[in-house]
Amino acid sequence: MTSTTIPESFADLLDWDTKSFAHVATIGPDGAPQNNPVWFDWDGEHLKFSLTTGRQKYRNLRADSRVSLSILDPADPYRYLEVRGELVEIEPDPNIDFISRMAKKYIGKDRYPWHREGDERVVMKVKPVKTTGMG
Amino acid sequence: MTSTTIPESFADLLDWDTKSFAHVATIGPDGAPQNNPVWFDWDGEHLKFSLTTGRQKYRNLRADSRVSLSILDPADPYRYLEVRGELVEIEPDPNIDFISRMAKKYIGKDRYPWHREGDERVVMKVKPVKTTGMG
Repeated sequence: MTSTTIPESFADLLDWDTKSFAHVATIGPDGAPQNNPVWFDWDGEHLKFSLTTGRQKYRNLRADSRVSLSILDPADPYRYLEVRGELVEIEPDPNIDFISRMAKKYIGKDRYPWHREGDERVVMKVKPVKTTGMG
Repeated sequence: MTSTTIPESFADLLDWDTKSFAHVATIGPDGAPQNNPVWFDWDGEHLKFSLTTGRQKYRNLRADSRVSLSILDPADPYRYLEVRGELVEIEPDPNIDFISRMAKKYIGKDRYPWHREGDERVVMKVKPVKTTGMG
């Protein structure tokens, strides 16, 4: 796996204050694509997002680590960044610290308000491999 | 291939006036996902979007017709619809009529302003097979 950096001209799309969403495409068990929006965090090296382990997307990424994130500029719909990458680590989030940080970022709440008893949360860490920007 | 209808409670996300974008995930030649936003039209039966035939996404869909569109409500980021479908037809757009209609929808222009001499435009018609909504 080769690594890559985010182009300087699109780095703002990953900023905390931009609050952009990432549409995350994975490959399902039959080889067909699956795609939905998530909250994400960028730590300068990894794109991170939360999943419950009951989700199809979690099973997809366990089986095939390749992922593509499509990120649209909320302020300019003619700017976007596609980040293709690989899942390199799954971190447990037993105290829902990470998803609560995301709730802070996106909805200004100190704690994620939709946690359900029994949900097992994890943090999916994706390393960018290739990027394509437009706009 | 089975067909499906769009759930009534999410049908507004496909409306002309909603001007939502679809993030379109396809499968590349190496089996990895590719994902980026597009303008789209919904005619009640097909989701349609424009491509130039030089695009990787065009080649991907020619090789594997399975596609997933992730559509976020521009007015409520906690509502989204995922439409999985299959490419069922490719229509030529030699006079850029379709992409100009999309320019009307999204940016209020009568004619698509970024057409380049030599670009061959087509309309990709996707039939929904399965939908998943949230929010």
